[in-house]
Amino acid sequence: MTITYVNNNYIDHNKAVISVEDRGLLFSDSIYELISVFNSRIIDFDLHIKRLFISLKKIRIKPNFSKKKIENIINKLMNQNSLKNGYIYIQVTRGTAERKHEFPINYKPTLIIFTKNLNINKKIYEKGVKVITMPDIRWMRRDIKSTSLLPNILSKQNAIEKGAYEALLIDNGHITEGSASNIWIIKDSNKIVTHPVNNKILNGITRQTLIKILKKNNFIVLEKSSTTGNLEASREYKITSLSESSGFLLISDLTPK
Amino acid sequence: MTITYVNNNYIDHNKAVISVEDRGLLFSDSIYELISVFNSRIIDFDLHIKRLFISLKKIRIKPNFSKKKIENIINKLMNQNSLKNGYIYIQVTRGTAERKHEFPINYKPTLIIFTKNLNINKKIYEKGVKVITMPDIRWMRRDIKSTSLLPNILSKQNAIEKGAYEALLIDNGHITEGSASNIWIIKDSNKIVTHPVNNKILNGITRQTLIKILKKNNFIVLEKSSTTGNLEASREYKITSLSESSGFLLISDLTPK
Repeated sequence: MTITYVNNNYIDHNKAVISVEDRGLLFSDSIYELISVFNSRIIDFDLHIKRLFISLKKIRIKPNFSKKKIENIINKLMNQNSLKNGYIYIQVTRGTAERKHEFPINYKPTLIIFTKNLNINKKIYEKGVKVITMPDIRWMRRDIKSTSLLPNILSKQNAIEKGAYEALLIDNGHITEGSASNIWIIKDSNKIVTHPVNNKILNGITRQTLIKILKKNNFIVLEKSSTTGNLEASREYKITSLSESSGFLLISDLTPK
Repeated sequence: MTITYVNNNYIDHNKAVISVEDRGLLFSDSIYELISVFNSRIIDFDLHIKRLFISLKKIRIKPNFSKKKIENIINKLMNQNSLKNGYIYIQVTRGTAERKHEFPINYKPTLIIFTKNLNINKKIYEKGVKVITMPDIRWMRRDIKSTSLLPNILSKQNAIEKGAYEALLIDNGHITEGSASNIWIIKDSNKIVTHPVNNKILNGITRQTLIKILKKNNFIVLEKSSTTGNLEASREYKITSLSESSGFLLISDLTPK
């Protein structure tokens, strides 16, 4: 039995539920993080939790839990669910309240944490993936890791149906990111371009880690926006998403040949 | 006890729940409708259900229920919950499935219907309301009545905190609509301007009904976009939202004095 955490209870994942008047369901008034686990190691835990608290602050959900509490829950779940490879999913909503657009005056955030055992699909890294481009029709606060993900899933589904793995999103002729990943354009053997951090993209944790590793290894990282023309002229490009890879996996991929 | 419908079960509203892996919660992969009930009459039922099925089609959720079934559920709930004034809330999600961005291959939509007893706040119509303007940062498919409502609730909350009732949203210098309402600018005693129907606004049911009634009463309805300048120059403007009014209430308000 897989155990899931919901608001201080540890329960059978198949019986883990929330109210139909939870604001996460009614308004996508919620924030999430997905953290990879690779060989029993939690990848970039600190960075994920830091971003979780930043996102909560941006939409003004006041957490009623600490980083330490999340750490304890995760340890318990990893243990109970024998999680060695896979991910930890965390979602925080503004809680259950009578349906009204404005924030409830008193609320208790809903905290959900579940885990999933998964093996990394190595083929993706060895063979590469096909991508398509699509208009970026998302809202203008893509820096917030919220569950307002309908445009993302519609884009991803469109990619899948076209035989591709991911949809690269184009905003005013410029590539922002993938529907669930950041994009990197490899210009020369040691020059890598990726979209700058602003409201137009989510600053991926793999993105942050990769930049650190690239710089340490004397690659030149240019954080600037690229046109679709730049993309077509580039010798190679990569997408990164922590849900399917760790920064460590990707760096070997990027070593100039 | 208030009874709520979830996937073929009628249960105590406080115990009505959905899975933590429901796509409505994880991705806001869901559609909703809110239908007013006034003096035991369901307002514009047919139009709401029609829009529900259109929205589902737009995001390609295949309903496993008919209009007739929804009608039966609503009758039962109205009866059980003694609903005379208030609203009926309907939400349909792409169901529960292992968390992956792309659509699940097999799924059973989640159907939730609950009711709420409420009295119409007449003051709003008699005294009018204060509004503020804010940038429209929503996604580009506002024609779909989805639960990707985070920008809407953030805008509404901002209005409330500024002592206003609603935020009028400005897209490229043009007024689209309110965070939860359509907007009407009264130009002359018998000329009324409202945003045309396209991907930039939700075609409100009250909007549709009001246009019909206005035309029948020899008002001139211009469906064209207005700048903030037009708004400031106008003698009066109104917002409409079915959750708080019926078209019938508003028409008397609009009679030229």
